[in-house]
Formats: sequence, C-alpha cells, structure tokens
Amino acid sequence: MIVHSRIEGTQLAGNLLGDPTERDLFVYLPAGYEESDRRYPTAYLLHALGSSAELEVTPETDGQRWKPPVEDVLDPVFGRIGTAPMIVVIPDGACRWGCGQWVDSPVTGNFEQYVLHDVIPHVDGAYRTIADASSRGVFGFSSGGFGSWNLASRHPDVFGAMAVLSADSWLDMTHKFMLYKYLDSIWPEAPGGPTEGNFWAEIVYNYSATYSPNPDNPPYYVDLPMAFPSGELIQEVWDRWLSFDPVVNVHDRLENLRKLRGIMLDAGSNDDYNLHWGHRLLSQYLNLNQAGIVHEHRENPGNHGGRHPERYQVALEWLSSTLEHA
Amino acid sequence: MIVHSRIEGTQLAGNLLGDPTERDLFVYLPAGYEESDRRYPTAYLLHALGSSAELEVTPETDGQRWKPPVEDVLDPVFGRIGTAPMIVVIPDGACRWGCGQWVDSPVTGNFEQYVLHDVIPHVDGAYRTIADASSRGVFGFSSGGFGSWNLASRHPDVFGAMAVLSADSWLDMTHKFMLYKYLDSIWPEAPGGPTEGNFWAEIVYNYSATYSPNPDNPPYYVDLPMAFPSGELIQEVWDRWLSFDPVVNVHDRLENLRKLRGIMLDAGSNDDYNLHWGHRLLSQYLNLNQAGIVHEHRENPGNHGGRHPERYQVALEWLSSTLEHA
Amino acid sequence: MIVHSRIEGTQLAGNLLGDPTERDLFVYLPAGYEESDRRYPTAYLLHALGSSAELEVTPETDGQRWKPPVEDVLDPVFGRIGTAPMIVVIPDGACRWGCGQWVDSPVTGNFEQYVLHDVIPHVDGAYRTIADASSRGVFGFSSGGFGSWNLASRHPDVFGAMAVLSADSWLDMTHKFMLYKYLDSIWPEAPGGPTEGNFWAEIVYNYSATYSPNPDNPPYYVDLPMAFPSGELIQEVWDRWLSFDPVVNVHDRLENLRKLRGIMLDAGSNDDYNLHWGHRLLSQYLNLNQAGIVHEHRENPGNHGGRHPERYQVALEWLSSTLEHA
Amino acid sequence: MIVHSRIEGTQLAGNLLGDPTERDLFVYLPAGYEESDRRYPTAYLLHALGSSAELEVTPETDGQRWKPPVEDVLDPVFGRIGTAPMIVVIPDGACRWGCGQWVDSPVTGNFEQYVLHDVIPHVDGAYRTIADASSRGVFGFSSGGFGSWNLASRHPDVFGAMAVLSADSWLDMTHKFMLYKYLDSIWPEAPGGPTEGNFWAEIVYNYSATYSPNPDNPPYYVDLPMAFPSGELIQEVWDRWLSFDPVVNVHDRLENLRKLRGIMLDAGSNDDYNLHWGHRLLSQYLNLNQAGIVHEHRENPGNHGGRHPERYQVALEWLSSTLEHA
Repeated sequence: MIVHSRIEGTQLAGNLLGDPTERDLFVYLPAGYEESDRRYPTAYLLHALGSSAELEVTPETDGQRWKPPVEDVLDPVFGRIGTAPMIVVIPDGACRWGCGQWVDSPVTGNFEQYVLHDVIPHVDGAYRTIADASSRGVFGFSSGGFGSWNLASRHPDVFGAMAVLSADSWLDMTHKFMLYKYLDSIWPEAPGGPTEGNFWAEIVYNYSATYSPNPDNPPYYVDLPMAFPSGELIQEVWDRWLSFDPVVNVHDRLENLRKLRGIMLDAGSNDDYNLHWGHRLLSQYLNLNQAGIVHEHRENPGNHGGRHPERYQVALEWLSSTLEHA
Repeated sequence: MIVHSRIEGTQLAGNLLGDPTERDLFVYLPAGYEESDRRYPTAYLLHALGSSAELEVTPETDGQRWKPPVEDVLDPVFGRIGTAPMIVVIPDGACRWGCGQWVDSPVTGNFEQYVLHDVIPHVDGAYRTIADASSRGVFGFSSGGFGSWNLASRHPDVFGAMAVLSADSWLDMTHKFMLYKYLDSIWPEAPGGPTEGNFWAEIVYNYSATYSPNPDNPPYYVDLPMAFPSGELIQEVWDRWLSFDPVVNVHDRLENLRKLRGIMLDAGSNDDYNLHWGHRLLSQYLNLNQAGIVHEHRENPGNHGGRHPERYQVALEWLSSTLEHA
Repeated sequence: MIVHSRIEGTQLAGNLLGDPTERDLFVYLPAGYEESDRRYPTAYLLHALGSSAELEVTPETDGQRWKPPVEDVLDPVFGRIGTAPMIVVIPDGACRWGCGQWVDSPVTGNFEQYVLHDVIPHVDGAYRTIADASSRGVFGFSSGGFGSWNLASRHPDVFGAMAVLSADSWLDMTHKFMLYKYLDSIWPEAPGGPTEGNFWAEIVYNYSATYSPNPDNPPYYVDLPMAFPSGELIQEVWDRWLSFDPVVNVHDRLENLRKLRGIMLDAGSNDDYNLHWGHRLLSQYLNLNQAGIVHEHRENPGNHGGRHPERYQVALEWLSSTLEHA
Repeated sequence: MIVHSRIEGTQLAGNLLGDPTERDLFVYLPAGYEESDRRYPTAYLLHALGSSAELEVTPETDGQRWKPPVEDVLDPVFGRIGTAPMIVVIPDGACRWGCGQWVDSPVTGNFEQYVLHDVIPHVDGAYRTIADASSRGVFGFSSGGFGSWNLASRHPDVFGAMAVLSADSWLDMTHKFMLYKYLDSIWPEAPGGPTEGNFWAEIVYNYSATYSPNPDNPPYYVDLPMAFPSGELIQEVWDRWLSFDPVVNVHDRLENLRKLRGIMLDAGSNDDYNLHWGHRLLSQYLNLNQAGIVHEHRENPGNHGGRHPERYQVALEWLSSTLEHA
C-alpha cells in the first residue's frame, strides 16, 4: 500500500527556478503494517533525472516501453521474494529543468537539506519507523544512485547503508563528451538555456544548475564548464562538477564510509553511458581502503535502465538484510 | 500463486522434431482460490515465439532488459487493479526450433489439438473452472496472439473470447521480406536449416515447419516459400502460409466469430514488424461484417513487445469483463 | 569536357505539376572529340530520384558524404581505364516532387516521349553521334536504372543496350512497406500530399504521380494504392504500379529484349531496399527465356548507392564494348 | 601519372613488430611533367590508419562504399580545378597493427625519421622537386592529419606548410573512452593484444605501440594507459599519449609554427569521433598566439571520412597557393 501526502520542503525555499516547495511524498507500507504496532526500518528511494516521486508511482503510459508502477515492483520483494518488511519512502526531487540531483544548489534548491530536515523528520513523525541510522537506508538508480552516494557518504549518522545503482560517476570519462554533444546540437548558435526537447541542452543545464550554479549569472544562473565557441574546458568550473563525483570525493570521505553498515554498488555491464566503469573504479578505491569499509560490488547484464526495476528489488533485499530490524 | 505440473501431450506424439510430449503446465490461481469453493472463468495465456511456459514464469536474467515474472504481472491485475478473479493457464508451446505457433503440424506437433484435448481437459479436471466456452478465453502476444486467433476463430464452442495482442498478421506485407533477409544472411550458401544464432534462419524454418511442413522432405521436413538462388516466391507454398493469416482466413470464419462473446485486437502503433497494420486491416474486415461480431480495436504506443506485460494486464481486464463468472 | 545547354521539352508540355518544359542538357564529349571529325556511340545517363542533370554535374556540397562531379567519374573511364570513347548524355528528369521516373504521366510529364522525341533528336543533331540503336545505349542507377529498363525494353529500335543499376524492381516485395511507413509517419492524419521533409511522403507521392496518376483527382492528381485509415491495399491501383515493374513486364517484352545487343544488370548485394533481389529475379526470368537474349548479371558489395560512381564506370565500360563504334 | 617504386626505409630498421623496411613509394607527377624540365613544389600525402600507400592508389573493392583511386582525386585538382601543378608524394606508413602514426617508436618503427631521411631525400633525388621547405608541404586525413601536424610543427625547416584534415586531437576528450570500449569488448578477459577483427583492440594497441611503446614489456611491447580490471587511468602512460596531442604540444611549438608559411585546419562538423572539437580548440590556441602564425580554420559538413577525397582536393589547392612555385 502506498500512502500519498504533500509536505512542505522548507529547505527548498528561495530556489531560483521558482519551483514549488510543497512536494509529493509517497510512503510504501509493507503488508501487515496496519495490523501491527511494530516499527520498521526505512529505505529511501531517490528517483532518477527524468522521473519524479509521482512518476515512480504512476509512470507515464506514452512510451514505446512499459514502466511498471513502483508498487508492483515492491510488492513481490516483500511478498513472493520474502524479504523482511521495510517502509519505503519516495520523496520528490524533480525540478523544472529535470532533477535536483539530491544536492544543495541555490538554483534548483537544497535537496540534500530537504531530505535531511524536511522528509526524514516528517516520515519518522508520521510512521512507525525505527528512527536510527542503523535502520535507515537509501537507494536509487542513475541520478538517484548519485544522490544516494552523496547523502550517505556525507551523513553516515543519518543513513546506515546505501545501494548505489548505475550512478553518475567518473564524470571526467563519462560525461565530458555531453558538453560537446550539446554544443553540436545548437551549433553555430551560442548556448541559450535548457531548450525543451533538446536532450543534451536539458542535461547540461540541469547538471550545471546543480553542480556549478551561479546566482550572479542571469538568466540561467549557471556556469557552463566549456567556453563558446572554442569548446575549451573551463577547468575551475569542471572541477566544481568533479567535486560531486563519487570517484573523486570518495578519498575525502573514508572516515564516513567506515561508519556505514554496508555499501552496495550495482551497475549494468552494458551501461549506455559507461557508468559501470565509474562503479568499478569506485569499488577499486574502496578496496584499497577497505579497512573497516564494508562494500559489495555487483554487476548485471543490463544497459542504462534496462533492468532497473529488478535492481530496485535487489537493492531492497540487500538493504533489508543490512539494516537493523526491530 | 502459480501451480506447476507436468502433463502428457498426447496430441504431440510423433512430431518429426522429436520434441518431448510431456510438457510443463503452469496454473495461476487467484487470491482466495484456496479459501473458497467457487468456480472461476479461465484465461489461457499462449506464449510467443522465443518464450515457453517456463520462461513466462521464470524469465531469463541474461538480457539487457528486465522481463518480469508473469506472477508479478498477474498479481496486480487481480489485486491493485481489482479485476474479478480468473484462473490463468500457461501451457507450453515451445519446440526445438522455437514455437509450434499453436497450430497442427506433423513436424513440430499438433499444438492446436494439444490445447483442445490435452491441456483443457486436464485443467477442467484439476481445477475449479467453469468448464464452458462462455467462461473460457484465450490471449497472447505475437505468435501467442496469432495462436489465440487460430484457436478461438476455429473453436468458438471451446473459447468464448480472445484477446489478440500484436499478432502475426498480414504476412504478405509484414513477413515476406524475412525470407530474403534469411537468404542474405547465408548468401551465397544455400538454405541449410535453422542455424543456431541466425535469427532469420530460425524464424524462417520455424514458420515453415508450422505453416508449410513437408514430412517427405528430409532432413528439415519443410517447404520453404522461396527458390534458391533466384529468390522467386513459390506461390503454392506461400499460399499455405497465408492460409494461416488472420487477415486471410477471417473471411471464411465469420460464422464462428459471430459466436464469440468478444474479440479484442491490440497492437503497438510502433510495432517493429508493422503488425499494427495487420490488426488495422483485420479490424476493418470485422467492421465490414460486423453484424453480430463484437470486437474492440485498441492501440498502444509500444513497439513489438515493449509494453507487452501491460498488455497482458489489459487483456485480462477485458477478458474478465467479457467472460461469464459464477 | 561537359557542354551545357538548355532544350525545349515539348513532350513535357501540360504536366499538371506545372514544371517547366525547358530543361538542362549536359553532354560529355570525350577527349579528342574536338580535334577529330569522327562519330561516336552515345550513352544516355538517366539520373536517380533526388538528383537532376545539374546535380550529376555539380553535386550539392552540404552532405556528410562527398559526391564526385560526374566529370571526375567519366574522365577516368576514357582516360586511365582506357575505355573506347563515347559521348555521354545527361538529360534532366527531375520534377517538383522528385523524379519523373522516365515514364509518361500527365502529372509529372511524359518523360519517356521527351527522351525519345526531344533529347535524342537534339543530341543527334548537335553532336557527331552514330545515330543508330546499335550505337546508342542507356544506363542509370536506382530510378535511373528503372528508367533505363523502361526505355530500352520498350524501344529496342532506339536503344541497343542498357545497363540497369540497382533499379527499382520487384515492387511487391521491396516497395509495399513504404506505403505504410508513410501512413505511420503522418498517423493519425490522413494523406495530404508530398510534405517537404517527409521522405516517405515524398516518395509515395512521387511514385503515385508517375505510376498511378489521376488527372481527375485534385489537388494531388494521384491515386494512392492504399486506403486510409484501414491500410487496405487497393489492388487495382497497386496493379498499375506493378505494370511498370521490370520483374512483371519482362514477360511481355521478350521480343523487344531479344533485339538488344546486350543487357547488364548490376546491384549491390547489400542494397538497403533489397533491390538486389529484384535483379536476381529478373536475371532468372531472362535466363529462362534466354534464347536470343544477351544479358549479364553482376553484383557488387555495395549498399544502395554506396558504390554508384564506380558502377557508372563499370556500366560505361560494358556499354562501350557492347555498342558499335565507328 | 603515378610512378611506383620501392625504397629502403633505413630508419625503420629494428622495429619490434618485425615489419619490412622496404616500402612502397608512389609519386604523382602532374600533367606536363614529362614534357618540361621545370621544377615543382611537393606535397606529401600521409595516409590514415587503416590505409597504406598502396591502398590510396588502389583501394580495396570489397566495401559497401566506393573509395576512389587517389589518381582520380588528384587529376581534377590540377586539371578541371586548375590548381598550379605540384608533385604529390605518397609514402607508406602502414604497420602490422595499423599505422605508425608518422611518429618514432621502437615498436612500429621511426616513421618520422623515415619521412625525413629516407623518403624526402629519395624524392628530391629522383624527381624535379624544388628541394626547399618553402616549396614542400604535407597533408593528410585522420592519423595522416595527425602525422602532418607532428612533422611540420617539429620540422619547419623541412616542411613549409601543412594541411591538417580531421586529425586525431584533444585525445583527453575524444579518445579516452576507446580504452573502455576495448575493455568492454573483451570483458572479463584481460587485454591480450590487437586481436584481429576487434576494432577497439586494434586501435588501442596501435596507439599504444606508437605513443606508449615499451620494449621491455613483451610480448606486445606496449604500456596500456589503463589498469585491468579496475579501469583506472594510468596517468603517466596517458601523459605520454597526450604529449603527441596537437592541442597539448602546440604550446611548446609556437616558435616552429611561426616559421611556417601556412597552416590549414579542416574537419567535418559531424565528425564521428568529435575531432572537429580538437580542431576548434587548436585554432583557438593558434589565434591566441597569432603573432606571426598564419593559419586558416575550415569546416565542412562531413562525418569522419565522408568527404575526405574532396578535402584532399581542398588541401592541395591551398598548399599549391601557399607553397612557392618555380
């Protein structure tokens, strides 16, 4: 059963995109929740760029391929598959340009603070959670995997485990070309914002709004990491992007990572954006510093997204076995 | 809940491929079945070429895209969606070269007779079905949609309704080129059987084994509909293929079709094989002869297979509303 | 050296598209022509759909792939390769919707008559040709190969040889799907003319204007061979298309074909439209009736158009060896 | 007219691949060469990876697309187009693994020294060249453009001008992903040499043999720039690659570049490997240091290679107008 409510995202106030601060919140309660008075561990599902809390629950039906409602993905986890029950929380991280990437930005909003200070307190207040990091996990796919890394590696006192699925990572190898695909798509025009229908424009501006916002640079309030028309990489801006990259910031967060009960990395070995290589590299770095860091590295035969409902299931099985139940 | 058993396919005896006659049978029993003694309508799910009864229940996990176990597709139909409960029967129609196409052939086996005389009697004997055409429907996707048409349009006394999903149809427009894709794939070699790993070889031989078998033509026991090397179409063989084509045989089956409680045609409007055009043409023919023929023509935005789990759900909702419940 | 002139296409007068009757004519004179007074055999190069006489001589430069000016293709034939010299004539067969297909149509113009009664008399009058069928050949690629077949198989008294390169042929197998690609491209709108930028619209209307024109059906003056929205094939219109198909009309033109000094069929075995199969079938029919019909069937590894400049060279070598020189 | 000879590549002696030192040399002599005693400027055409001197002159005929013999590309330059005549020299730079990239390597051979000390002296001795940098240019496409940059930017006393066509450049943006495409292509096997038929294996080993050779590392004598299986970039090896990159080494070669009579950069704006961005960046760097550096930056609508014969022609027109004639 999924409970829908609306919560006030106080931490999103003042975002320069003018996005609303009141947001959907969906909470999946496992079978038996209503009949009992026990407390449950919670798993926070962070959606990907292009999705939203609402679209996870009720996917659009206009595509060539079917996307299952998340309830039909979660029910078998705790039913047929027999995973010990958890509450699954689906907060909304969408913004006008795509996704807030679950990080703090004056342009798109402080989504990291919003999860920490709006969503979690609300959930712990409204539902019978075990309100402790040891019983609170986070997972997500693509930008949601990226967000999971960001939240848990910075706040091990809040989240005790993370399952990182096909996360944006190793941007220097996997994302740099996107800047040039974007310029090619508008050439010889100069960059002019996240033009609707132009995929490359949308993601370059979305990433810039979250990784390299610049409130002093209207009308788009971002610094792009490449010059126009030369294409030269602007290293100082690019470095701001890289500071969010798991394969970069892992080195500074080892102490935090040691506090986690577990880290799962999972990616499709046919990832269209080569993100499996970011995962492999991240796993390598964790191995090199493994004293005290518990991590598990999995791969599946999927492309980017092709198996993601199944990977949600795998992540939940693993989270449920990693977090502390009542 | 899915119940697995093995049944003897007496009608498959003597097939020239030497395929086993004992077959899997999976029966999905709706929630509440065990606790009640009521009888239920039944929906027969005929799988597609490339699948099998077992693969519907437990899909392979080695693909770039996830396929949900059929149980996770059916549970929401009768749970979340609230469709009135039915028993769903999943017989096995696979053969060594692919799929028996749910028709009778001395090469692949008499799959039509097998459904009629082996599967249905077993199901009606073993489960609390309403053993009457008015409460028995059939559905399937691709070759399974084709098989549904074949069975219900020939046996309205057995099946009271059919949901035909992206069925092989209008072969003259949609399938003819496959003969030449196959010859191109082996050129300049002559046709030499359903070489594993050669998709075109596999389907051309599979179709020939079911539509134009020739027991007197070892080692493959088929007549191919095109000459080698000229490529000339052998009209008499091609006509044997066409006799199975819904857009062809519909004209001879109008009396039978009038006996049905309902016909649903559903196809993706981006079907990779243009099968939506066969459905449109078939719908047009049914409309021209509509006196007494109840049919519904739907389209969805899918490609061939991209939305097929959802279309299973749509078919079951429709079947449940069309068939007679106790 | 290429000589450019403009000629009056008297036979194009009254075409319903309102296309001009004055046309470009380019005549390639082999090295030595000016210094001698000898007479030469002539080869008529019929361009493809999408081209024009002018574009053969001066191709557009805005594509991702380079197309050589025809002079740079012809010079090596008679220079480096050493082919006995011929005059090569490049008439214009373009129309507002694409190409007149080198056949007679009240909509696009009577291009067959125009070649016979405008172009050839002009050339024979203005240049030192050997004005006899035994020294006059025709060749072309795609629609130009189709046009070559049409002209030589109907007028063996005018053309003594033809080189048919990747010609539109076996339309029933290769072109039928285009009707449905077109409908898909505009769905659910009804057919509304050769919308610019819609490739399928452009070719379906172009073919209809040339194969199934209907002066009584404004505003497009064509009969389309398929119904809307059912997609049903309108057999009587489709039969009009087929009457132009070499694999169909070959059977009625055997006497004419016997009068030719030679027929060359050449196609890429990776033709994107499967036209190599039309060529194979045509070759098979010619073989079956070979008494007196001289034909040569070649294949090359090209896709549709990928090797066409080279095939022009091959065609000219063969024509020069087949036609009578002074 | 093209003159073929064989020359001894003394500088290639001892290459670890065991490739022969005797090499083809093709020299294109412009029309009129034989009848005069004048001297001509020379343009050195450096072929691309995948080609050879012989394949420039006589391309393979087994592809889906036609490649013109270089003679048919050069004849119009000095004939129809009217470019002032030059001698065009086509040395061989092929190696067993692909192409020596026109640089010095103990593995593939010292191709830079070979051009300087074997090819040029031979040509200046055997033909009526103007044996001076002011009358000697170099050009090439892809790896040949890369080689042109390498030779002229290091030896302005030898070459007075270069036309760099779609050259390998900005490797950090354009080539890094190839390392991972290669690992993906063999995963989970470890790197095992330039397996024939594996495009990624062939180019990664070819580049490593030329940019990061290691004679002490049998059996392949290369350092790969990425670790296996982690995929971690080995920065010191990658830096060796980058030292060959025009956008990197341009900064150290400004004095040399000032000595040139001209630099032409030309790339297709749809380059499949994004090499147009390397060209743009290089042009930007040249502009920033333009005092005394004469360069011209052109773009064409081609993909990688789609217009390369035409660009040879453009390069030769430009070289002829830039170099000094007698």
